[in-house]
Amino acid sequence: MEQKLDTLKAKLKEIKNINDAVAVLSWDQQVFMPSGGATARAEQLATLSKLAHEMFISDEVGELLSDLSEVNSDYDSDAASMVRVACRDYEKARKLPPDLVEEMSRTFSLGQQTWMKARAEKDFSQFQEILEKIVDLNIQMAEAYGYDESIYDALLDQYEPEMKTEHVAKVFAELKTELVPLVQAIVENKDVVDNSILKQEYDETTQWGFGLIPLQAIGYDMRRGRQDKSAHPFTISFSVNDVRITTRVYKDQFGPALFGTLHEGGHALYEQNVAPELEGTILASGTSLGIHESQSRLWENVVGRSKSFWQFYYPNLQKFFPNQLKDVSLDSFYQAINKVKPDFIRVEADEVTYNLHIFLRFELEQELLTKRLKVADLPDAWNAKMEEYLGLTPPDDAMGVLQDIHWSGGSIGYFPTYTLGNILSLQFYNQILQDIPDLPEQFARGEFEALLDWFREKIHRHGRKFTANELINRVTGAKSIEAGPYLSYVKEKYSEIYKL
Amino acid sequence: MEQKLDTLKAKLKEIKNINDAVAVLSWDQQVFMPSGGATARAEQLATLSKLAHEMFISDEVGELLSDLSEVNSDYDSDAASMVRVACRDYEKARKLPPDLVEEMSRTFSLGQQTWMKARAEKDFSQFQEILEKIVDLNIQMAEAYGYDESIYDALLDQYEPEMKTEHVAKVFAELKTELVPLVQAIVENKDVVDNSILKQEYDETTQWGFGLIPLQAIGYDMRRGRQDKSAHPFTISFSVNDVRITTRVYKDQFGPALFGTLHEGGHALYEQNVAPELEGTILASGTSLGIHESQSRLWENVVGRSKSFWQFYYPNLQKFFPNQLKDVSLDSFYQAINKVKPDFIRVEADEVTYNLHIFLRFELEQELLTKRLKVADLPDAWNAKMEEYLGLTPPDDAMGVLQDIHWSGGSIGYFPTYTLGNILSLQFYNQILQDIPDLPEQFARGEFEALLDWFREKIHRHGRKFTANELINRVTGAKSIEAGPYLSYVKEKYSEIYKL
Repeated sequence: MEQKLDTLKAKLKEIKNINDAVAVLSWDQQVFMPSGGATARAEQLATLSKLAHEMFISDEVGELLSDLSEVNSDYDSDAASMVRVACRDYEKARKLPPDLVEEMSRTFSLGQQTWMKARAEKDFSQFQEILEKIVDLNIQMAEAYGYDESIYDALLDQYEPEMKTEHVAKVFAELKTELVPLVQAIVENKDVVDNSILKQEYDETTQWGFGLIPLQAIGYDMRRGRQDKSAHPFTISFSVNDVRITTRVYKDQFGPALFGTLHEGGHALYEQNVAPELEGTILASGTSLGIHESQSRLWENVVGRSKSFWQFYYPNLQKFFPNQLKDVSLDSFYQAINKVKPDFIRVEADEVTYNLHIFLRFELEQELLTKRLKVADLPDAWNAKMEEYLGLTPPDDAMGVLQDIHWSGGSIGYFPTYTLGNILSLQFYNQILQDIPDLPEQFARGEFEALLDWFREKIHRHGRKFTANELINRVTGAKSIEAGPYLSYVKEKYSEIYKL
Repeated sequence: MEQKLDTLKAKLKEIKNINDAVAVLSWDQQVFMPSGGATARAEQLATLSKLAHEMFISDEVGELLSDLSEVNSDYDSDAASMVRVACRDYEKARKLPPDLVEEMSRTFSLGQQTWMKARAEKDFSQFQEILEKIVDLNIQMAEAYGYDESIYDALLDQYEPEMKTEHVAKVFAELKTELVPLVQAIVENKDVVDNSILKQEYDETTQWGFGLIPLQAIGYDMRRGRQDKSAHPFTISFSVNDVRITTRVYKDQFGPALFGTLHEGGHALYEQNVAPELEGTILASGTSLGIHESQSRLWENVVGRSKSFWQFYYPNLQKFFPNQLKDVSLDSFYQAINKVKPDFIRVEADEVTYNLHIFLRFELEQELLTKRLKVADLPDAWNAKMEEYLGLTPPDDAMGVLQDIHWSGGSIGYFPTYTLGNILSLQFYNQILQDIPDLPEQFARGEFEALLDWFREKIHRHGRKFTANELINRVTGAKSIEAGPYLSYVKEKYSEIYKL
């Protein structure tokens, strides 16, 4: 058995090496590739994706897994977890024909290039045709996976295993009931918070330089990663020891670059802190996107937009930007970075309205997959929902339906994980505060190690060993996601800021 | 047959996609990868290299080639050339066991990382162990390939097919006979040329910005490529439409960045101008390193260090660096960039002493492969040859034996192609001047299209269709490399500059 396990590990490592190469090619595609390289890159990605898929769904892997599945005694052990997770992946992967995998890879890669150009030129019509193909391929994929109730379940399961659309819809409805009136109340009191100090000229290089300070302070290891610029910020991992992030910097605004950096830094901390002994195995990454987003949203918001964080960093920031901030008090700054304002762009949205952007996408995705909505009508549908949830009509497609990279890269069913992450971040944080009550005081001293250690011990080091629900249960005692802690946090924080 | 050819093309394209992915991973490794990523990257490269190799040497490919080899009627056609070149590659590749390919890839990848650190710390001892392994793997590879006379033949053949060590040694001896006394005569007149104006502070960003102007003027297409910084400048291609170059910039020196840019630009022009219909095929790259270096050395030296080139660019350069150059005449500048001075670093050497650096490496490589020289004794042997050829002793290993990346990446037998390129650049250039006699006047007007068109037509577009000797013969009528034109050029140019 020992020998079979070694054979399986070697085989899975080979497959992981190919998938890691795919990640390097994707990173380059989004960060540095010249436009001329798009077609060849799509072919390279398609070949590698198909190869990795074929190797994984081979009978050889199937037989090894079947032989090994009988002996996984200790549930928590590395070996048993590897076999368990590989079996789950294998059963899913077997359902996808290699030609579909190749075609998806090629189309999603070209989709991103098409989207970049369409977005730059604010023109949805350039993107429509390939998006139609992307939606169609996602439907084919969902049909291949199969599902009981909703076609959306099959896609959601790729990003958030075990989670059902119905459950997400229920939790989202619960949030909506409380968030929509909260946003209305805030809008009525909107003049309480003025964030015009953030909308000045902030030198890009100086912003970049400042961002590196908290990024490294929260524990991001630059020897095992790097930060670059890209059209859409993201985190990507080629190894536990090579986890990269990107950000974007606006010269006329303070906020997006820094909070984006903390967000991606949160993702990266998860990937960098998977146990070293899991490196190169199928377990060496985050277990679900919801758990991943709980990390990124926690560092970005619960930590990065907290008063105590800025008690430590604000004097330093004032030194970086004396002209802009020297006469601005910490309280005014804290209020400014927490201004709630219905706006167009999801990634730059405040904590409260952020979820409304997600509801919109979650609903539109379901309509596309069930063909109640045509891709051609998507911009209108988008704008209608923006009006409904946020009271706004985007001035152009770049500020509306073209703002996110996800659909262009083939990811449908991904967006809900952001709000799941928001919810989870507070479920975890409430637990942490019970274990380490003086955490805010630590932040105020610029100390983040205890928080990172806690996450490393409870979540990061396990990689994919446990499912999201298993982790939630082990860490908090709850069975799954619960909206309560997040709603309490949002209501308390923003009632204070907006004097509601 | 048509169908078999399509099957072969599809198979070879898949293999090329993997090899192109290898190139992307190597580029990243040298340009952006954080040090932590080294081990995982070596594994990724090893897996992909082994896979591509296994796919290529499969019986399926062998049978297709054997069936198709009977029908290649028109020698010059794309189809016949593809089959011919694929057969040649196949026969070579079949000789290498996949495990050796995998082991070489892993070791050469780690070798580069080890070299980077050793070079930065000027310490050969850190590099010795892995270099011993690299030499040993090269010997294994040479034995696997087989050879008639010299073990060096087997390695040289990878970079310069058809070329024999004996022939190289003969041509090098011919050069040596003339170049060594020329260098001596120049050294005696060394005060005729003063290049101290080049050794001032030259802002790095401004140098970078200036370099982009001639780079694009000679025809490098930035939409199908990009330039980055790296420890050792190089050119790499992932597609005819994604050909990237790197350079390095010194803030206290003008020259290395610009001439390096023109050198890599020359390589890139070759790769970018392969006929579009060859994209994705086995023919889509340069045919040999000697031909490749003829392009890079021609644009760097014959064009980039010519008086007429600077008649056009010097006034512009003076505007970029007024403090450094406003009082310096074009003649003084022309002399300065052509100063001949025995020095430590090959890539920064002038046109005349450059070849002496190559003789040294060519001789040491042969001694290593035949085990007359131990890797442990290499630094001493290096320094002794530096004393012999250039009258200098390197102050440390970084300025000596550790200066080049090639050995660390597994390339032994590569260096001679630089001098072959020097020689070829003049064989070609003499021919071009017969076809386009006013070329220097065109350069003086900043016009390089006629030169690029000539090369595109005669050499670039063919990709790997013809061997180096076939190209030389078709283009110049000569049978192979001939030292004459190069020696005449060097003697004439430098006799004038140094008033010999």
